[in-house]
Amino acid sequence: MKKPLIAEMISVGTELLLGEIIDTNAAFLGERLRDLGIFVYRRQTLGDNLERLVAAVKEASSRADLLVLCGGLGPTDDDLTREAIAAAVNEEPYVDDALLRDLEAKFAARKRAMPEGNTKQAWLIKSAGALANPVGTAPGWYVNKGGKIIVALPGPPNELTRMWCEQVEKLLPASGRVLYHRTLHTIGIGESDLAERIKEFTRLDSPGIGTYARNSGVDVRIAAAGESTDKARAVAEPVIREIELILAPWIFGCDDETVVSAIKKILDGRGQTFSCMESVSGGVLAAEITDCPGISSCFRGSLTAYANEVKIRAGVDAALIRQHGVVSAEVAVSMAVAAKKMFHTDWGLATTGVAGPAPLEGKSPGTAWVAVSGPNGESAAFVDWPGDRAVIRKRVCRTVFQSFLNAMKESR
Amino acid sequence: MKKPLIAEMISVGTELLLGEIIDTNAAFLGERLRDLGIFVYRRQTLGDNLERLVAAVKEASSRADLLVLCGGLGPTDDDLTREAIAAAVNEEPYVDDALLRDLEAKFAARKRAMPEGNTKQAWLIKSAGALANPVGTAPGWYVNKGGKIIVALPGPPNELTRMWCEQVEKLLPASGRVLYHRTLHTIGIGESDLAERIKEFTRLDSPGIGTYARNSGVDVRIAAAGESTDKARAVAEPVIREIELILAPWIFGCDDETVVSAIKKILDGRGQTFSCMESVSGGVLAAEITDCPGISSCFRGSLTAYANEVKIRAGVDAALIRQHGVVSAEVAVSMAVAAKKMFHTDWGLATTGVAGPAPLEGKSPGTAWVAVSGPNGESAAFVDWPGDRAVIRKRVCRTVFQSFLNAMKESR
Repeated sequence: MKKPLIAEMISVGTELLLGEIIDTNAAFLGERLRDLGIFVYRRQTLGDNLERLVAAVKEASSRADLLVLCGGLGPTDDDLTREAIAAAVNEEPYVDDALLRDLEAKFAARKRAMPEGNTKQAWLIKSAGALANPVGTAPGWYVNKGGKIIVALPGPPNELTRMWCEQVEKLLPASGRVLYHRTLHTIGIGESDLAERIKEFTRLDSPGIGTYARNSGVDVRIAAAGESTDKARAVAEPVIREIELILAPWIFGCDDETVVSAIKKILDGRGQTFSCMESVSGGVLAAEITDCPGISSCFRGSLTAYANEVKIRAGVDAALIRQHGVVSAEVAVSMAVAAKKMFHTDWGLATTGVAGPAPLEGKSPGTAWVAVSGPNGESAAFVDWPGDRAVIRKRVCRTVFQSFLNAMKESR
Repeated sequence: MKKPLIAEMISVGTELLLGEIIDTNAAFLGERLRDLGIFVYRRQTLGDNLERLVAAVKEASSRADLLVLCGGLGPTDDDLTREAIAAAVNEEPYVDDALLRDLEAKFAARKRAMPEGNTKQAWLIKSAGALANPVGTAPGWYVNKGGKIIVALPGPPNELTRMWCEQVEKLLPASGRVLYHRTLHTIGIGESDLAERIKEFTRLDSPGIGTYARNSGVDVRIAAAGESTDKARAVAEPVIREIELILAPWIFGCDDETVVSAIKKILDGRGQTFSCMESVSGGVLAAEITDCPGISSCFRGSLTAYANEVKIRAGVDAALIRQHGVVSAEVAVSMAVAAKKMFHTDWGLATTGVAGPAPLEGKSPGTAWVAVSGPNGESAAFVDWPGDRAVIRKRVCRTVFQSFLNAMKESR
């Protein structure tokens, strides 16, 4: 097996450092490099300062085989990526005639005169090949010198992703390594409890195992590298199967599946439908459900019943609200039953609780009840998870999805 | 004026390098540090590898006055931030009794036994003070040693932002430079149109002016630095007032205000209420509305009427759906009127359209109608904004909020 390539990334732009835009290119490239079997050890973000950029390019090249720079290829004085690479590899930039003609043609096609500043987008250095930019003006650079590769890509994500996928990946030396991976999604188990249960595997060198706390629950990613997909799969699959057995009570799907697509799969298989009545989640539950394309096959709708009068008009028993308070198991169940009836569905889900910041009925923010009403009866679950409004609402949704999956298992 | 502080940031986590999550903390901290007058020169992301982390902490500390680390404070073996800082500053971690008791109390409050692994969340080193974590288990560290400050924050954004705002900013040394800034929020005007209208100001050196396209519309940020708040304000305010005059037709609020808080302010002032009926937005509209604390003063509820039968049972005219299709101005208006009636409110908002990925009634994804029904009549607006489901739903919400603000202006 060849020695794997080590990569670093540098994102260039003061606006990234100042937090004015979020760097989504970094996530895109991280994923692509991983799947090419290239190890990414470090990513940096620097502002538009030539001295610091040159230093960073030199440092990164001394550590890594492949350096990918994103951004700083625009036409203005503070676009300094070309200057920094040229200085770092000690070469002199020159205007490339073919690139200049291309650039002038692009402006002519838009019926605009090319501003003088854009000339530097036609620069090259001796060790650099140009990467064509089909959607913007700035060509990229592919520099190959002294066994090191430096790639410079434009910052706009649509330009960067096309240039990377259509041109750069073909130019990179084959790593001789393929990654095989699978991500298992769990719900209803905490990260440290989960980690404890699979700890005999997380200490393995290969496959590598990572656990990640998400809004939907905890993910487990199992990945192995090998000379071929078959060899990598042979290392990963036995461990994946063992982990699946251990975590079976909590796994709801894998890879691209979401908790809602898992729910849809079960309901579509049974020809059943569902609906919701929301108080504390205030529409977040419906929004998460309808984020799943095609969910109208089984989802009929949701009532965000923010005011108590709305709940009562929708069929919730006013006496239960008076007797137990609106944040109670009894009212949650009554809401789930009312949703089922109102929307004519097989299942009804409900949420009621305190999103904060102020307490309600003497109950503190983060206190909530969720309920599920199905063909065979009702169940309710308590949530007590302090946090801000957004966290509490997400947490309530996770709990109601978990209750729903459990109720569907039991009613099989 | 004192020499400004130089800061660097390090985000820790293999999942960030692999592109599995996008680093939103970096943008948050970049913005806050800028507003404190602290210069950020470099940001790095490293995986869960102790050797590389220690090297990066040492390098960054040698360049910067302040180093902020995010993430890697969890309970598992691959959470290595504490270990890395301790090694970099050459100190030995120990279990702090008070932190351990706090931690055990948190688990006890959730009626769970504390897993052994969490003990390391009670670690400190001699030069570190603990930063309390009101929403999670991991305390942060504030290390002050040899004239350098190292801050370690937990990775989950809700934990990080509270810890930073409530504790860290008070501990940081004053920079001797104060920033005065204001952000004006607009809706209904495009970024390049807006930039053209205020271009005489954007060329100024101070105040600096930035425009940012957001989900809610376009923001304009005006900021000036000075030795005191008064001096900085004196530079910024005259320009802010001129820009406010130019953009008055589109400005709905400033700084922390959101479009929903602006709506709430108007309705509370008039003693009016509102409600919604959602199809294409599928709960996203209600979720955005109920994200605003205290909105129950004027918001009664929303019906996500995903299925046509649900719309009809809620009062939408079935003949209109047959005649014009469900994605039509007529049906949008009928839904807004039905919402008003169903929830007994002064105003009703409605959305109907195609979120995709498949077309509906021969209409392509991104096509939608929104409507507002108020005390003096109805209005409808067309949306045609291709994109993925999330983009389309956000865009529909923006349009309905814009229509609502306009309708309220006219009904004054």
